[in-house]
Amino acid sequence: MNTIEVALSQSEFGCFDPKSKIVVVVDILRATSVICTMFKNGVSEIIPVRSIDEAKTYKQKGFMVVAERNGQKLDFADFGNSPFYFTPDKVSGKTVVYSTTNGTNAIMEGSKADTVIIASFLNFSSIFEFLKGGQSDVLILCAGWKGKFCLEDTIFAGALAYSLINSGNFTTICDSTNAAIDLWKVASPDMHTYLEKVAQRHRLKKLGLDDVIDYCFTMDQTTAIPVLKGGSLIRLC
Amino acid sequence: MNTIEVALSQSEFGCFDPKSKIVVVVDILRATSVICTMFKNGVSEIIPVRSIDEAKTYKQKGFMVVAERNGQKLDFADFGNSPFYFTPDKVSGKTVVYSTTNGTNAIMEGSKADTVIIASFLNFSSIFEFLKGGQSDVLILCAGWKGKFCLEDTIFAGALAYSLINSGNFTTICDSTNAAIDLWKVASPDMHTYLEKVAQRHRLKKLGLDDVIDYCFTMDQTTAIPVLKGGSLIRLC
Repeated sequence: MNTIEVALSQSEFGCFDPKSKIVVVVDILRATSVICTMFKNGVSEIIPVRSIDEAKTYKQKGFMVVAERNGQKLDFADFGNSPFYFTPDKVSGKTVVYSTTNGTNAIMEGSKADTVIIASFLNFSSIFEFLKGGQSDVLILCAGWKGKFCLEDTIFAGALAYSLINSGNFTTICDSTNAAIDLWKVASPDMHTYLEKVAQRHRLKKLGLDDVIDYCFTMDQTTAIPVLKGGSLIRLC
Repeated sequence: MNTIEVALSQSEFGCFDPKSKIVVVVDILRATSVICTMFKNGVSEIIPVRSIDEAKTYKQKGFMVVAERNGQKLDFADFGNSPFYFTPDKVSGKTVVYSTTNGTNAIMEGSKADTVIIASFLNFSSIFEFLKGGQSDVLILCAGWKGKFCLEDTIFAGALAYSLINSGNFTTICDSTNAAIDLWKVASPDMHTYLEKVAQRHRLKKLGLDDVIDYCFTMDQTTAIPVLKGGSLIRLC
């Protein structure tokens, strides 16, 4: 029987031992939903970078750069962080450099583990099947907002943990996993209404960027499982 | 209108700005329940200390010392951390030095704020009335377990936040506050059953120390509001 745990924020992640576990990074609004969309549409490689300076350096070297802070595209970047930008004609076969407020930092934090994969509702069933069939303990890392807890990542963590425990292959004694499952159960009967109270929804709305919400909560738009290898995200399958 | 926020763990607390707020420290199993019990029974002053060495030094100076780690009383201490030890004959009029796994650290972390008060179900209504009638924003700090989230502190935070928002004097845009409220709503109709999944309950059970659970979830056993002044907890009212 494998174990499942949830780090509810990046601040809390340092209290867990990620070694020999699969770390599943989640940033539903919007980084991991964007990454899954890029792989769905044929991107070859995504290089996550923490700092704006690193992203700028890549831009100067001729890379395609996606970069935002606090939801807004940075001036020097080619694209901001909406999944709708990354159609096959833009990204198929390309390498993309990627830097966001929370998600890319979470991916780099997660890299303390042997294996880091990227999850969202868009690739939910593929992630579930991959983890269910494996022999590794799982630690879900919620990217959150500037080190803090956020609802949408926790709800996803609850959905995934609930499914894995129900599969009979996973167990938990982790309070945050049980909390995430309870929040998923509260939210899932009427997700659209529940999302009204999500702070990130209101941040995006203020910026006119909340057209992505329904899409980011749509299940199974791709079978891609992005995995971190040598500092880059590539498609595991 | 005042705001209310919840830091779901000590790790996350550093992401909040506690200045000019009232920080409400919560460690239901067991530190803040023990502190409220001591004030109910007439303790004069509690000196919280982070380290075992500090607690030992106080012991050598002749102070009464309460100290535990991982639930168990330390050898040199006068008492472990059960609220049942602190009857009036033991503590009335006394100064007690206090060091625990999570709670005392949370109190010292909270001291970055102007005002730190100690809350538990045992003094719930007094805390609620004090905050409701005040003009300050409130930040609840859940002590958790070794930096991590725990369910029982979060459920308390949800109960308090729910009451304050319903009073009409408080509002929130904080995801963790909304999550805590939802978890309180899930747990409160049958708290006894819900507590079965709390990790700290199982830790205490293994040590034969779980006789405190029902007591720690009993409302309004005291009107005392412990407040931190000059490094010591004293009775505000």
